Amino acid sequence: MRTIDWDSGAVRIIDQTRLPDELVVLEVREVDELVAHIRSLAVRGAPALGVAGALGMALAACRSAERGGDPADPDSDRDADPEADLDRDLSVAAGKLCGARPTAVNLSWGVEQLRAARAAGAGRDELVAAALAIRDADIAANRALAERGAQLLAGTRRVLTHCNAGALACVEVGSALGVIEQLHAAAPLEMVYVCETRPLLQGSRLTAWELGRRGIPHRIIVDSAAAGLVLGGEVQAVVVGADRIAANGDVANKVGTVAHALAANYAGIPFVVAAPESTVDPATGTGAAISIELRDDAEVLALAGRRVAAPGSTGLNPAFDVTPAALVTAIVTERRTISGRAVEPGSVTAG
Amino acid sequence: MRTIDWDSGAVRIIDQTRLPDELVVLEVREVDELVAHIRSLAVRGAPALGVAGALGMALAACRSAERGGDPADPDSDRDADPEADLDRDLSVAAGKLCGARPTAVNLSWGVEQLRAARAAGAGRDELVAAALAIRDADIAANRALAERGAQLLAGTRRVLTHCNAGALACVEVGSALGVIEQLHAAAPLEMVYVCETRPLLQGSRLTAWELGRRGIPHRIIVDSAAAGLVLGGEVQAVVVGADRIAANGDVANKVGTVAHALAANYAGIPFVVAAPESTVDPATGTGAAISIELRDDAEVLALAGRRVAAPGSTGLNPAFDVTPAALVTAIVTERRTISGRAVEPGSVTAG
Repeated sequence: MRTIDWDSGAVRIIDQTRLPDELVVLEVREVDELVAHIRSLAVRGAPALGVAGALGMALAACRSAERGGDPADPDSDRDADPEADLDRDLSVAAGKLCGARPTAVNLSWGVEQLRAARAAGAGRDELVAAALAIRDADIAANRALAERGAQLLAGTRRVLTHCNAGALACVEVGSALGVIEQLHAAAPLEMVYVCETRPLLQGSRLTAWELGRRGIPHRIIVDSAAAGLVLGGEVQAVVVGADRIAANGDVANKVGTVAHALAANYAGIPFVVAAPESTVDPATGTGAAISIELRDDAEVLALAGRRVAAPGSTGLNPAFDVTPAALVTAIVTERRTISGRAVEPGSVTAG
Repeated sequence: MRTIDWDSGAVRIIDQTRLPDELVVLEVREVDELVAHIRSLAVRGAPALGVAGALGMALAACRSAERGGDPADPDSDRDADPEADLDRDLSVAAGKLCGARPTAVNLSWGVEQLRAARAAGAGRDELVAAALAIRDADIAANRALAERGAQLLAGTRRVLTHCNAGALACVEVGSALGVIEQLHAAAPLEMVYVCETRPLLQGSRLTAWELGRRGIPHRIIVDSAAAGLVLGGEVQAVVVGADRIAANGDVANKVGTVAHALAANYAGIPFVVAAPESTVDPATGTGAAISIELRDDAEVLALAGRRVAAPGSTGLNPAFDVTPAALVTAIVTERRTISGRAVEPGSVTAG
């Protein structure tokens, strides 16, 4: 099952707001509907949003061709020229889609790919084909990097991961979770330790759900239990995804990642980052250039909508942290493996 | 205000189950009541429980002297000899108190101190005096170690702490939080980063409450945000308490502690353990000999009583972790400072 897909002129998405309680697949035929689902986080994850942007434009192209209306009617927005109709409908859809989550770079990227195809003369069918090619490229890239990562970690039986870098963030194959599934396919894993990933619990809600569906043994832990398990010898490798990778190999990922990298380094086990090549940003020199998004501190101060923190106290809620390249054993993309620190206890110390 | 105290023949305790929402002081006149409050965690924390055990025995001694009843009545448990009554009442109270939380070593220790005093001939007033001496010793020890710790960290303005090693775990002065308050008294702190301390949130509920009452600037963070702040230069020292310190200096403390030690070591800032001398256990050679209590995984899988984790997934919930002595800059007790690693970036690597 794919997180997001295309079927007979409609976009199909797994509604992640209903997970892990129930698996609901939404069939979306209108751009406005898709925009609402993007806003509500029914579909999330950078790669999945890129595909959502492209498929949303394909949706607009299909609906444009189907729309009735008499060009002679002054109340109709239809033109005598269907090509002019298509251009206008795509332009409106592009604005709505990009505005659904303005800071999601991949979403705009997916939209722009389709605009470029249209500018190059693509009609409805070619636009749909272009969107499906983006979908397929995501699947292929993650499958390739998953295989590469699993080869690198061959023989590993107990791994730890953080947040959700799984199929739910992509289309069909995850990045970090893709590596873990490939490892399990090669020889059954003994245990995947899943960090719950405070504050929003993508680990205990989404990653655990994905592992459970695939029958991969796993245990959910509080994030701060990871270091003790790593130093205690319970974990043989840490595998995580990435939100952005700087030119020097510094890795921005979900807050908490760098603590796992420090523990892995101290214990002398691999710390592997699995991410598509598109995550590498040559324009960002080092991690110091990455500004860390600060989210609403209510996410820290309240649980399930009820305030738990001391009255009057405030929080600080960075969404990401930066893992120095020196702590990373390898970055695995669909094209290459970028090698980092040697795998031996305490091989890296700060300068 | 003291977490636990004695006033006119009654034990007074701050009801920690009501914090941080409201400050309620319970006046307890019967041993059975105190036992119920210990069970419900109205009073918690190793040092505070030691004092609770001793004050509970003092309570039993006072009530024994006040109890009526005719020794000649066959339904009465009164003896013609009030000394025999006192012995029997103390023995019953000791069993109830120790049974309230059987694994709490300090609770039994406090009870045993009073049994020993009785065995040495103490009457009611001497028993009360012995319990008050234990209370006062806790206050004095924590005050002394707080001053020693603040001297060690003089000039530090931004610190990070984990869990609650505050007055609420002791009588009047905390251990780690005692150090932080002393630092603030010497020169106002810029910021205390309070780790929320999943799964039970002693940081966001109790430590933040204590700091708020004292007007010390603080922010609550998810535990996994600590490493990013430490590596980013936001934190100048990490100060924590301890549950047990092995003979070689390995430190068992609330799960998550070792991750902060790794970050502090990598960043080259002090990692200081503040704990009374009674926490040092010469009978435990190294941290490897400390068995880590595994608690109910429901604490990890549910928030505020509602399950959040994927259905069918299980958790793993270690209550403590062990920080290797090599990562500890200093252990501060009321009697001495045990020096560890040098304070320079990445000064310790695993062997």
